[in-house]
Amino acid sequence: MPQNDTICAIATAQGGAIGLIRVSGPQAVRITARIFTPVAPATPLEKREPYTLTFGHIRDDRGETIDEVLVSVFRAPHSYTGEDATEISCHGSPYILQQVMQLLIAHGCRAAGPGEYTQRAFLNGKMDLSQAEAVADLIASSSAATHRMAMNQMRGGFSQKLKELRGQLLHLTSLMELELDFSDHEELEFADRSELKALAAQIHQVIEHLVQSFDIGNAIKNGIPVAIIGETNAGKSTLLNALVGEERAIVSDIHGTTRDVIEDTMDIDGITFRFIDTAGIRQTHDTIEALGIERSFQAIKRADIVLWVIDQTEAEKQIAALSGKIIPLCEGKRLILTFNKSDLNAPPASIEALGFPEDIPSIFLSAKQKEGIGLLQSLLVKTAHLPAISSSDIIVTNIRHYEALTRASEAIHRVQEGLSTGLPADLVSQDLRECIFHLSDIVGEVTTDEVLGTIFEHFCVGK
Amino acid sequence: MPQNDTICAIATAQGGAIGLIRVSGPQAVRITARIFTPVAPATPLEKREPYTLTFGHIRDDRGETIDEVLVSVFRAPHSYTGEDATEISCHGSPYILQQVMQLLIAHGCRAAGPGEYTQRAFLNGKMDLSQAEAVADLIASSSAATHRMAMNQMRGGFSQKLKELRGQLLHLTSLMELELDFSDHEELEFADRSELKALAAQIHQVIEHLVQSFDIGNAIKNGIPVAIIGETNAGKSTLLNALVGEERAIVSDIHGTTRDVIEDTMDIDGITFRFIDTAGIRQTHDTIEALGIERSFQAIKRADIVLWVIDQTEAEKQIAALSGKIIPLCEGKRLILTFNKSDLNAPPASIEALGFPEDIPSIFLSAKQKEGIGLLQSLLVKTAHLPAISSSDIIVTNIRHYEALTRASEAIHRVQEGLSTGLPADLVSQDLRECIFHLSDIVGEVTTDEVLGTIFEHFCVGK
Repeated sequence: MPQNDTICAIATAQGGAIGLIRVSGPQAVRITARIFTPVAPATPLEKREPYTLTFGHIRDDRGETIDEVLVSVFRAPHSYTGEDATEISCHGSPYILQQVMQLLIAHGCRAAGPGEYTQRAFLNGKMDLSQAEAVADLIASSSAATHRMAMNQMRGGFSQKLKELRGQLLHLTSLMELELDFSDHEELEFADRSELKALAAQIHQVIEHLVQSFDIGNAIKNGIPVAIIGETNAGKSTLLNALVGEERAIVSDIHGTTRDVIEDTMDIDGITFRFIDTAGIRQTHDTIEALGIERSFQAIKRADIVLWVIDQTEAEKQIAALSGKIIPLCEGKRLILTFNKSDLNAPPASIEALGFPEDIPSIFLSAKQKEGIGLLQSLLVKTAHLPAISSSDIIVTNIRHYEALTRASEAIHRVQEGLSTGLPADLVSQDLRECIFHLSDIVGEVTTDEVLGTIFEHFCVGK
Repeated sequence: MPQNDTICAIATAQGGAIGLIRVSGPQAVRITARIFTPVAPATPLEKREPYTLTFGHIRDDRGETIDEVLVSVFRAPHSYTGEDATEISCHGSPYILQQVMQLLIAHGCRAAGPGEYTQRAFLNGKMDLSQAEAVADLIASSSAATHRMAMNQMRGGFSQKLKELRGQLLHLTSLMELELDFSDHEELEFADRSELKALAAQIHQVIEHLVQSFDIGNAIKNGIPVAIIGETNAGKSTLLNALVGEERAIVSDIHGTTRDVIEDTMDIDGITFRFIDTAGIRQTHDTIEALGIERSFQAIKRADIVLWVIDQTEAEKQIAALSGKIIPLCEGKRLILTFNKSDLNAPPASIEALGFPEDIPSIFLSAKQKEGIGLLQSLLVKTAHLPAISSSDIIVTNIRHYEALTRASEAIHRVQEGLSTGLPADLVSQDLRECIFHLSDIVGEVTTDEVLGTIFEHFCVGK
């Protein structure tokens, strides 16, 4: 993407009261001025101070008024992209927005690609690559935790940490290379090897800590997968509705969220749970239908938490039929035994009597009467055991960062080994430079155009 | 709705790069300042000049950053509502927008109802009621024609016309009432009755012209209903797809329009056509299935234009089976005979030979090969024979205005009759006042709160 042209894009979604068009590039103010007639104040747009708004009309080439708008003016480098820029605030009619876009394009703008604004901000040094990537995460954030992680990353928390690490690595490298320069003088020992080892170990620990934070970050960002399994008559769908139903209503109240987007996803205490719908397992003459159960077992494999819904009135029978299949699949997962239909006055079952170890969390509830749903939600939060995240915590959420950190971790590990086994300084130094390379990749200092393209194509247009 | 409080609303649709929150009312700047920390320039929001932008952070009460935003400041009366106002431009995350709304509400704002911004603009005298109503039409406008009508109305074209009319009516009334005041002096003839009649006739003509424009306005605003009828094997759905398919693709290219919204609607030369899907009529053993045909006949009743799709390869048979039923139903409608499957090399049928009058428009095409679709579109535009609308034409599009104008027309008609039959001046004058009342109702000068509520509840929130 060339950077010397002027781009424009609709930055708001379709269907609101107001629509916003962003223009950025060397000709931004001039092109906007060509289609805009100011009313108040009547100063021409090109003579307006930056960070001001001007009310007026967008007119087409025949002089017909397309809309009454407010235009904001920004001047390089004090704008989002670091370039000259305008923002045109129109009435939110798709027709009007399209007409204004066509006029801008006719007067020399180019329709921006996805993420091109943020890409320009990155290329103009307004933010590093990890901060730019956080912009997309921030827009997509839907819970307190995802918001906090993205905001911290966008504001440079992660970048600062990486900068510190690279500073330490450069210090280590310079010590190593100084040794290298004077390697003829065997009597010289510039760098105390045990000090170097301690420094490398410390760096390794910090990088490993970041690598390990990805599990948490991923769970927070994409939601913790929860499989709800059980026989068809156990009340699986009623439970899912009872769990998700209320939250759905709340979300719709706040802002016309479409139902299919939040289907089976809910936030509890700021943690997102992603419920995996499973086909109910049907028992016919005490044999288990192969098809249904296979689907459910697939769901278990994708889940972190398994909610096994058991009908209390026939708990023993259902457990006998399925536990041989379910229990082995739950290894490494967190199983919650959910005894449903507590409103039917079944004799209270004892977990141990049913043959389960005492430490498996269990709950008795009535999905139909919505009794015990709050307790189940608390149990889910407890079972998820995600740490509370403060705004200063650095959590890796991006797979690209995770991969770079993993490679950096491997490189610094090789440095440690090299220092231990007395490897020549030049070889150790090579691993050190590789470690620095991978950390630099995260902030975009060594990133190729191809990688940049892949990163920004996932952004929305207008950002 | 009380007007002395400060309201806030999300003015953009969910899902864009940028989300905009509007705040309006006496405390707008003060409340926004409480949750906003300026960065550049660092001047407190309350000391910023109107029509300026300030970059900074929205922070919650624990000091945590919710977002990096741009805040616009407006001061009464120079804002959309005529009140003090701010606009907060955030990242388009539903979570962030919701958090900012909650903060504003916690600090003393009230969440705005639908159309409350425009209602305040009306109540503060920034626009009259017909202009305010045009704002909703402008946002909903989806074609050049609907846009032009709404823009003209919003900019006061209609209001100006009504003002002229009321001026003439007031003049007429004053002449009548002067006569009334001096009615004891029979010899005095202040108002020349024939002059009064001419003036009333002129007013009546203008009002009637406006009343009649509603048919055009309605067709432009809601689209011209077109029923596509014919036997199941005539290629009805293929034709509908050929007609709408391309336009659909274009609309999606411009801005991710959802398919179901534009389903069966398309613009040709700025005119909206609304295609009414009909069940195909099926012939079994030369008798016609009752159910299918009944549905199709219902569709004809709702249509202005009827596209009868006939398979050329069995034109005579299809026409013989259906014309007895279809032709009578098409009275007052515009019928287009659409001979499909021209690619199958059927012998060219002659309209007259098939027993139709020569003046029924007909077209030969192949929906499958997409041959003749452009011609059909031109024929639809020609058949719709909507007048080209210039930006100064006044077209009534609102049913409330139509009703008020109809009543005004009736009243001025009674005035004319009264003048002809020598009705006493005080009775004529009463009809004149009624006529003025109805015209005043359109611009909102005599409109009750209840009516206002009904008007603005159809607006979107944030406008």
